[in-house]
Amino acid sequence: MSVGTLVLLRHGESTWNAENLFTGWVDVPLSEKGEKEARRGGHLLREAGVLPEILHTSLMRRAIMTANLALDAADRHWIPVKRDWRLNERHYGALQGKNKKQTLEEFGEEQFMLWRRSYDTPPPPIAPGSEFSQDTDPRYAGLGPDLPLTECLLDVVKRMLPYWDESIVPDLRTGKTVLVAAHGNSLRALVKHLDGISDEAIAGLNIPTGIPLRYDLDEDLKPLKPGGEYLDPDAAKDAIAAVANQGR
Amino acid sequence: MSVGTLVLLRHGESTWNAENLFTGWVDVPLSEKGEKEARRGGHLLREAGVLPEILHTSLMRRAIMTANLALDAADRHWIPVKRDWRLNERHYGALQGKNKKQTLEEFGEEQFMLWRRSYDTPPPPIAPGSEFSQDTDPRYAGLGPDLPLTECLLDVVKRMLPYWDESIVPDLRTGKTVLVAAHGNSLRALVKHLDGISDEAIAGLNIPTGIPLRYDLDEDLKPLKPGGEYLDPDAAKDAIAAVANQGR
Repeated sequence: MSVGTLVLLRHGESTWNAENLFTGWVDVPLSEKGEKEARRGGHLLREAGVLPEILHTSLMRRAIMTANLALDAADRHWIPVKRDWRLNERHYGALQGKNKKQTLEEFGEEQFMLWRRSYDTPPPPIAPGSEFSQDTDPRYAGLGPDLPLTECLLDVVKRMLPYWDESIVPDLRTGKTVLVAAHGNSLRALVKHLDGISDEAIAGLNIPTGIPLRYDLDEDLKPLKPGGEYLDPDAAKDAIAAVANQGR
Repeated sequence: MSVGTLVLLRHGESTWNAENLFTGWVDVPLSEKGEKEARRGGHLLREAGVLPEILHTSLMRRAIMTANLALDAADRHWIPVKRDWRLNERHYGALQGKNKKQTLEEFGEEQFMLWRRSYDTPPPPIAPGSEFSQDTDPRYAGLGPDLPLTECLLDVVKRMLPYWDESIVPDLRTGKTVLVAAHGNSLRALVKHLDGISDEAIAGLNIPTGIPLRYDLDEDLKPLKPGGEYLDPDAAKDAIAAVANQGR
């Protein structure tokens, strides 16, 4: 017996992905390539007959626009929408706005990989009032002291899971097909939870951009097929390899 | 004492506006010109410091995309969204998909203007199962016998006002700035209500595309300034004259 269908969609390439900068909570737009990826994601949904009935997004332009373009291509632009900061990308602290290659050269392979892939070591916090901080952004005004200044993946898990339980699970329990359009790390946090991936093994898991990942869940919200199913498995395999080489 | 601010935005030019076809509930996309109008509407919001805190749209692509593009341009893409069919354009019945000029020539000036501007005379109903009907559209599956087969403006008023009362007014009463992105006739229905325009006089009222129309409302939800204020009054004046000449 299955509850609803969950579809995860990581946003297409952003202008800062293209420039190899750490982005985090900086609200950059999709690149032209990213817009194409988003539309293709929508065509994949339509071809597979996977038709979202409700959308959950972060508060960030690249996820919102990816969802808008994908749903328009799938003729599902009219479905209800919920947005929440707890689906945002991991806050990248003081690294936000920095070049990945330069950061690797400046701090060395070990520190670089610790910041990128350690489960519980966040980068240094961003300075309030600095160029790429969010402390005056009206969309986060309600967060008060909960506004992150940096995050490790564990921090993302901690803020994302309450949203999963409170807001996404109830939609799945009504039998709906639920689309979550979000980010590399908020989706890794969710997949870690769904598939019961260890704190160590999650470091090796990459989610490709723009390829819908489908999970059918049982009544305990465990995946019927571990790891889910990408709607374009070959493209996903190629893209996963490419993500792993970012910053090189 | 004022409650929240209401901002009305009619969608930009659609591909069928450009081809001079009756559209109604046919879900056509924006033209390139329409996309530009939508972005410009967002720039007008930003320049005027009118920052929507919640969005209400119809279920139709041209209103949804107009809102998406305008809010992105205004840096407000992240606000909450509510969608409802009761904000849809007037259903144009059997005229949907027909050329306006040909219809004028075929049926004559009097009948043509009756269908376009009469308050209580709908066009002939659309035949279920015909090319431009909505009877198998999943977004309207829940409507059952309420699915319109044709509508006059009075019918639009009757289905739009309950949504205004139930869903938009409560947002205004919390003091929010509320954006309603919708259509020529659903917005005329709303303006008729707000400004207390008579059944006869509403025939002469046109709302231009892509120019935000701002209403500040008192506690009885009456406009502080009758007719509201367009964020670009000169462009609105020119556009209103152009709309009045459609089909000629």
